[in-house]
Amino acid sequence: MGLRDILERVSSGELSPEEAQARLAGYATTDAGRFDAARERRRGIPEAVFAPGKTVEEVAALVGTALDTTGRAIVTRLGSEDAAVIEAGVEGEATYHERARCLVVHGGGFEPPEISATVGIVTGGTADREPAGEAAVIAREIGASVERVEDVGVANLTRVVDQLDRLREADVLIVAAGREGALPTVVAGLVPAPVIALPVSSGYGFGSDGEAALLGTLQSCTVLSTVNVDAGFVAGAQAGLIARSIAAARP
Amino acid sequence: MGLRDILERVSSGELSPEEAQARLAGYATTDAGRFDAARERRRGIPEAVFAPGKTVEEVAALVGTALDTTGRAIVTRLGSEDAAVIEAGVEGEATYHERARCLVVHGGGFEPPEISATVGIVTGGTADREPAGEAAVIAREIGASVERVEDVGVANLTRVVDQLDRLREADVLIVAAGREGALPTVVAGLVPAPVIALPVSSGYGFGSDGEAALLGTLQSCTVLSTVNVDAGFVAGAQAGLIARSIAAARP
Amino acid sequence: MGLRDILERVSSGELSPEEAQARLAGYATTDAGRFDAARERRRGIPEAVFAPGKTVEEVAALVGTALDTTGRAIVTRLGSEDAAVIEAGVEGEATYHERARCLVVHGGGFEPPEISATVGIVTGGTADREPAGEAAVIAREIGASVERVEDVGVANLTRVVDQLDRLREADVLIVAAGREGALPTVVAGLVPAPVIALPVSSGYGFGSDGEAALLGTLQSCTVLSTVNVDAGFVAGAQAGLIARSIAAARP
Amino acid sequence: MGLRDILERVSSGELSPEEAQARLAGYATTDAGRFDAARERRRGIPEAVFAPGKTVEEVAALVGTALDTTGRAIVTRLGSEDAAVIEAGVEGEATYHERARCLVVHGGGFEPPEISATVGIVTGGTADREPAGEAAVIAREIGASVERVEDVGVANLTRVVDQLDRLREADVLIVAAGREGALPTVVAGLVPAPVIALPVSSGYGFGSDGEAALLGTLQSCTVLSTVNVDAGFVAGAQAGLIARSIAAARP
Amino acid sequence: MGLRDILERVSSGELSPEEAQARLAGYATTDAGRFDAARERRRGIPEAVFAPGKTVEEVAALVGTALDTTGRAIVTRLGSEDAAVIEAGVEGEATYHERARCLVVHGGGFEPPEISATVGIVTGGTADREPAGEAAVIAREIGASVERVEDVGVANLTRVVDQLDRLREADVLIVAAGREGALPTVVAGLVPAPVIALPVSSGYGFGSDGEAALLGTLQSCTVLSTVNVDAGFVAGAQAGLIARSIAAARP
Amino acid sequence: MGLRDILERVSSGELSPEEAQARLAGYATTDAGRFDAARERRRGIPEAVFAPGKTVEEVAALVGTALDTTGRAIVTRLGSEDAAVIEAGVEGEATYHERARCLVVHGGGFEPPEISATVGIVTGGTADREPAGEAAVIAREIGASVERVEDVGVANLTRVVDQLDRLREADVLIVAAGREGALPTVVAGLVPAPVIALPVSSGYGFGSDGEAALLGTLQSCTVLSTVNVDAGFVAGAQAGLIARSIAAARP
Amino acid sequence: MGLRDILERVSSGELSPEEAQARLAGYATTDAGRFDAARERRRGIPEAVFAPGKTVEEVAALVGTALDTTGRAIVTRLGSEDAAVIEAGVEGEATYHERARCLVVHGGGFEPPEISATVGIVTGGTADREPAGEAAVIAREIGASVERVEDVGVANLTRVVDQLDRLREADVLIVAAGREGALPTVVAGLVPAPVIALPVSSGYGFGSDGEAALLGTLQSCTVLSTVNVDAGFVAGAQAGLIARSIAAARP
Amino acid sequence: MGLRDILERVSSGELSPEEAQARLAGYATTDAGRFDAARERRRGIPEAVFAPGKTVEEVAALVGTALDTTGRAIVTRLGSEDAAVIEAGVEGEATYHERARCLVVHGGGFEPPEISATVGIVTGGTADREPAGEAAVIAREIGASVERVEDVGVANLTRVVDQLDRLREADVLIVAAGREGALPTVVAGLVPAPVIALPVSSGYGFGSDGEAALLGTLQSCTVLSTVNVDAGFVAGAQAGLIARSIAAARP
Repeated sequence: MGLRDILERVSSGELSPEEAQARLAGYATTDAGRFDAARERRRGIPEAVFAPGKTVEEVAALVGTALDTTGRAIVTRLGSEDAAVIEAGVEGEATYHERARCLVVHGGGFEPPEISATVGIVTGGTADREPAGEAAVIAREIGASVERVEDVGVANLTRVVDQLDRLREADVLIVAAGREGALPTVVAGLVPAPVIALPVSSGYGFGSDGEAALLGTLQSCTVLSTVNVDAGFVAGAQAGLIARSIAAARP
Repeated sequence: MGLRDILERVSSGELSPEEAQARLAGYATTDAGRFDAARERRRGIPEAVFAPGKTVEEVAALVGTALDTTGRAIVTRLGSEDAAVIEAGVEGEATYHERARCLVVHGGGFEPPEISATVGIVTGGTADREPAGEAAVIAREIGASVERVEDVGVANLTRVVDQLDRLREADVLIVAAGREGALPTVVAGLVPAPVIALPVSSGYGFGSDGEAALLGTLQSCTVLSTVNVDAGFVAGAQAGLIARSIAAARP
Repeated sequence: MGLRDILERVSSGELSPEEAQARLAGYATTDAGRFDAARERRRGIPEAVFAPGKTVEEVAALVGTALDTTGRAIVTRLGSEDAAVIEAGVEGEATYHERARCLVVHGGGFEPPEISATVGIVTGGTADREPAGEAAVIAREIGASVERVEDVGVANLTRVVDQLDRLREADVLIVAAGREGALPTVVAGLVPAPVIALPVSSGYGFGSDGEAALLGTLQSCTVLSTVNVDAGFVAGAQAGLIARSIAAARP
Repeated sequence: MGLRDILERVSSGELSPEEAQARLAGYATTDAGRFDAARERRRGIPEAVFAPGKTVEEVAALVGTALDTTGRAIVTRLGSEDAAVIEAGVEGEATYHERARCLVVHGGGFEPPEISATVGIVTGGTADREPAGEAAVIAREIGASVERVEDVGVANLTRVVDQLDRLREADVLIVAAGREGALPTVVAGLVPAPVIALPVSSGYGFGSDGEAALLGTLQSCTVLSTVNVDAGFVAGAQAGLIARSIAAARP
Repeated sequence: MGLRDILERVSSGELSPEEAQARLAGYATTDAGRFDAARERRRGIPEAVFAPGKTVEEVAALVGTALDTTGRAIVTRLGSEDAAVIEAGVEGEATYHERARCLVVHGGGFEPPEISATVGIVTGGTADREPAGEAAVIAREIGASVERVEDVGVANLTRVVDQLDRLREADVLIVAAGREGALPTVVAGLVPAPVIALPVSSGYGFGSDGEAALLGTLQSCTVLSTVNVDAGFVAGAQAGLIARSIAAARP
Repeated sequence: MGLRDILERVSSGELSPEEAQARLAGYATTDAGRFDAARERRRGIPEAVFAPGKTVEEVAALVGTALDTTGRAIVTRLGSEDAAVIEAGVEGEATYHERARCLVVHGGGFEPPEISATVGIVTGGTADREPAGEAAVIAREIGASVERVEDVGVANLTRVVDQLDRLREADVLIVAAGREGALPTVVAGLVPAPVIALPVSSGYGFGSDGEAALLGTLQSCTVLSTVNVDAGFVAGAQAGLIARSIAAARP
Repeated sequence: MGLRDILERVSSGELSPEEAQARLAGYATTDAGRFDAARERRRGIPEAVFAPGKTVEEVAALVGTALDTTGRAIVTRLGSEDAAVIEAGVEGEATYHERARCLVVHGGGFEPPEISATVGIVTGGTADREPAGEAAVIAREIGASVERVEDVGVANLTRVVDQLDRLREADVLIVAAGREGALPTVVAGLVPAPVIALPVSSGYGFGSDGEAALLGTLQSCTVLSTVNVDAGFVAGAQAGLIARSIAAARP
Repeated sequence: MGLRDILERVSSGELSPEEAQARLAGYATTDAGRFDAARERRRGIPEAVFAPGKTVEEVAALVGTALDTTGRAIVTRLGSEDAAVIEAGVEGEATYHERARCLVVHGGGFEPPEISATVGIVTGGTADREPAGEAAVIAREIGASVERVEDVGVANLTRVVDQLDRLREADVLIVAAGREGALPTVVAGLVPAPVIALPVSSGYGFGSDGEAALLGTLQSCTVLSTVNVDAGFVAGAQAGLIARSIAAARP
């Protein structure tokens, strides 16, 4: 149904302005300045505040807006000191995830969603921790169960093989791609669920900062999709969206 | 359950070699030379033959192996003349998808899968046709319904808006990203389903050959995952995997 | 005035659906498949058909649609042989610009626009001909007068100096940037009008294919804006838009 | 009229040396060392002092020269502490634009220009503030009215739609291009005025530091011209030049 | 022993000019124009003629020189038709390796070397054939046994596992790195011998032409060294050098 | 022997689970969390702890695990202050190599390996020290003798010539490639042993950070293999592997 | 003496217009369309016609203009067939340099310059022939003696050493830089004259098309300047300029 | 005369070892560790100490060696504080060039060379100061007169034109290439002497850090050679070499 039809029906009274607005969806908004509160309603993904380049006061103000409009606030890439400042100033239940460098605040009366689907998150080394942690936080806020499989690496295949059972139980997998980025390819060759590669900015020399890892996931000889380097939030939200679609289909 | 456990159980008779092999999954194979027939069993994605760089005889031989081992053959990036040669030599039902440049052959008695989920495929211009067509062929072979939304573009938003209803019905969306690659970002801001961006090698000058499009999807200010430039097969298979997971969850 | 207001007024009868649609502008369209006929109305820039990657039949069909919906058709990057085929099949006045590789068709009764403003187009060498020619065709179709200044180059400043009077009379200038791309910088230092740089894919070795030229315009120590390498259509249309704004302001 | 002609006329007394020099324009200068005071006369763009890499003393000295020769000084990319030092040492009316990081000083008796044209400046997020602010300062110093439209983004189209009326009133638009750089393309599809894209160095991972944004504007499927990443001064000056041309044409 | 010492000893008669020259090694040469016949003596690697960019006559002439000076000629990247022309004109035993696109000619009386060491060459897909074949030809001409392991790939680990015994018997391994380049990393994690990665120019889109593969080998999280993309000759010669060092140490 | 055969034999009692596991090798592991203790057994290369991005506590913990499982710990890219902290907390013989920035700890009773083969390490300037030192430490820990040839450079060929005798005695050579990366090519043209190039991140301007050096080694007109920029550990381990293969072959 | 002074003196009759024009030099021109005939007078470098992208008719026309205005024509990158067509149509002495792909025509009465200085041109392999030949043609047309040293290469230092006497006699040297581009660095370390590096587009894989060679010359650890990849004309003209300066100083 | 001939003559007593060594030149050296004292003798370019990455003690030690072996020391890229430390510890006449960040020390009795030739050095803005200053220091140490032309820029051609007389008197010119790098091209079009471009790492956004400037000099439509970005030492030394060749030719 196109725009003209909608307008005609509003004109004829068949459709109320509210219904028309809902119909046009993304177009409905309770827009509170910089914070896109309607995103959760449109896409089911909670909006997060990206901390770098903002002062702690700016972050705190956006946290307040988020709590007011959606009952919840998520801040990514936030240092522990700034987190403490913000936690001190909010009401509700605040949790700072140190390894993920994320702050989550649930306002009073906020009912965290729960969905019956599991996101598996597979990592190799130390450098994968922060982006993978970020992904885990977001996936959990969307309501998914998160299953972490850590310290597996392609240089020692046993670690992968020993975890096959767990890997195969996840509804969707996020696999970190550090260094040469081979792990998502190896995992995606062994499991039935969709795999989202999360390239990580590790390594040194040519192809470092995640370039080799990203190219490795784009050129993978198996089937997977990828997100940008260190984009833990995006990987977690995309996996959460898929998990939610699966959970929603469950009877 | 780790490798050692499996071996102990085989030794003690708790597990037959067949069961152990099945358990180790990916490890079981009826490997017919170059063609990975077990992939469909492991991942549910039919293996496809990538035609470029192979002679028509080599492609034909692989088509034969595919039919023998899995009952079906899919060839991507195949010219119409080569397709005609191969069609002439096979038994079964062969379909050549001209715009997608894909050949699909179903052997006698092959039962195409059908799943109750829809993959939406959104494109802008002429250049998107081939990769999007490739994606459609694969998604259909996995059993999904495919809904095409064509000729929408960010330079004229109405085209997107007029198709919102159709876009919102898909279980998962593939959105082609030609030129500056903005379409997947715009669409992903309007729909609830997971979006997979498919960058396309259009344009000229700096950032052409899909580079601007790919970077645009990686830097998207909304949530989506991406595949490599022109990787229609990968986009279609990844969307198909997600669709199948959803369909499998349906009661 | 926001979307909700518009819908409320449609509902209350204050606004007819037609007016609402016009209000939302870009949203109104007489969309004929792939051809965006509404673009000219929205932006005043005639839509052009980009020939590469399309068959001559496809180009001809789009030319037909363009003539039907806007009374005019413009095709860019079209070889002379294909142009002849298309010219043979259309009604109206067709002109093929050989150096610009553009075909323009004015349907019967089409009234070409005329605006009282001048676009100056400055080029250095042979390689600049095609993109500059493309720019000239578009600027003229928008209705501007076009003044060509050819064969000036930074390696011989006299050529520039000898043309200063002509350069200073244009309302807006397009300056081709071949090789090292210094010409737009030199010209922009001498004239009062806005300068649009048009990098050209000339040269060989490192920085060729217009890369040095594009970077040179982006890093220019004077004031100018730029378009992509060889993007003659974009340069011509942008200059045309500016010329039209100026002409519209003239009493 | 070429150089030889001018010289002949000077020789014959037809032309005074002063007139000849004026004729050769750019060639006339009251050059005060490093500061190009004649630029404003030649192009109507006030010369600005680019602070990075200069000591505060060097900046202050150039500010003095600027005030002496043109009655005005503009400094870009200046920290607030350095600004305070310089403000303390100058006569005239000094204004420090914190978000834009620009210092403007009007000497005693300086008559700021005023032109009857509007530059619209559209931004998405926090990262766009500084370059867009820089653009606004320059456009205002050229005399244009500046209309800011903030916090619109392609991930939530309503924000754009809700501002359409304001966007359509500007004579020329600067649209910031952060992240994937889609906003200028979307806006340019909806307005009649010329659009200048201003890519911004936001984002992380591949294509960050404005690379994706710049490529996105160069590959845009609509008509616009672009400036370098974060080049707020250039965008503002180019828009100001266009606005002035339009204003000058107004009766 | 430095140059001066050598000269002093020549002067004092302790060293003959011949011995001095031998001492300075590389410095002694029976240089026949463009062909470096001394290379085999210096390094034990037969010089090869790189065919691209040379006419068939030039290649034939160099083959003649090679036969005259070293008793053997090797031509790489030679088409089958040119090979036939050259074979027809030489004396000795000529073998054209079709898949490797190499021509080898042993002159009458040439005694091919034989060394008691094995070079393993591991490949994944069709694209790896030519560079891996080139490597095999060179390794054999150095005298090594060559063991090919074909059609293994990281997307199906069984293929690797099933060949572990053979992989572990080689004295040195060359592993082709197509697509994402993960295979050398996986193999190097399982075998005790040195591994040389040979990136191959397969794939499409971003990171194709071997770029992802090369970066993947440079960033590998295990221990290996690499050669340039498609540099089969270099990989084969380097592996041959290592094999010969090992064989030479054998009692 | 494939996986199925192994499983059948375990089932029939022909093979014990232990033997099967050993057979599948890489699959056997005494995996202590993040530290891959089995690597030394599989490949003969001691696992090293890469310090950057880890806290001193994390490094110390991994050193403890390494000592417990393999009797030895190696830490690379470790600052001297952190090294002092760690040395203070471990038992056994700790050596900090200042120029190499490596810490080596031999636990009580650890018997360092010794092999009868020599690794030559050739460097040019100051910048080569750290990566070359890292390579030397690893090669020695594998048991090889290390022969350093320092301060030779292509801009003064005598330095190379004066060291020819020493260069020719090594069983395998690592040659640092700083600046333009020509040294490995020059050395590899003069010696019979395999050469591994180690590009170093020196220089400034275009091609710095080791890019020119790496490309120079990949494009070398002689035979060598390369590792990533500054990858001293990889070069040392690869050379050590080759040296060990040669030593093992010695009677 | 500034522009104003010149104009004042013209006005006062101290300077004739001709003298003023000569004074302003570059400003004097007998500009014949696209061909810059004045270049030779200004810089002593004959202007050359760059053939690629021009039709044979266009090249012939420019040859005619060159002969008319300067008595000589030089065409670079011209195929032998086109050369034959042009030779047939011109009067004067035409020479086609096959390996350099350059055509030189001396009109009747043209007196080729001769200068008492030598340009040495050093090359390694087959790929260097064309650019080095182009350089030789230009240097000779400027009047210099040219001394060719061919087939030397860094992989076999003797070839360089054996030519040291000849290399040291040149007044200025052009050294081709193929593959890894090490030759100019090695040569510049051995001779007293200025060295101009000429990178050549040879090699394959990463860093090919002259990229590694160019970076190698830019990062050279010795003193030299460079021109673009394959820019034989520029290298020859720059060396010719230097040779002429030296010759002019000779008594 | 080849190596063998030299050895034969040494053997026969025709040549003393000293003469032979001198003959082989570069091969003779009084090599004092890391400092190449013979370079000045071989090439006439004083060796300089590159300070970055070295401790002040290391720099001081190399200064001592330089003074001992050549009577002079030059240090580049040295901070003023480190310079003060070193000056305090040396004997002889020390001069620290603040803007060039170079320290020059002439030992007691050192006779600075003087040659009758001039190096012109042309710069645009502030960022050019340090590399141009470095070039000036080196050129002067080679003995040339240095003529500085500052604050000229392509955005205001008068500045160039007003300095034409001075520019034309230099025997060789170094022209800084900041921002878009157009200045060397403009200057080289106006002067008869050889021009060496010196790209400078100024600007911001795409093509900054000297990339646009370097590409601009490589793609220049006139004749010049270039050095790496910020390579003031190399530009100064190359210009000095040319100046010396010219001076040596003067009677």
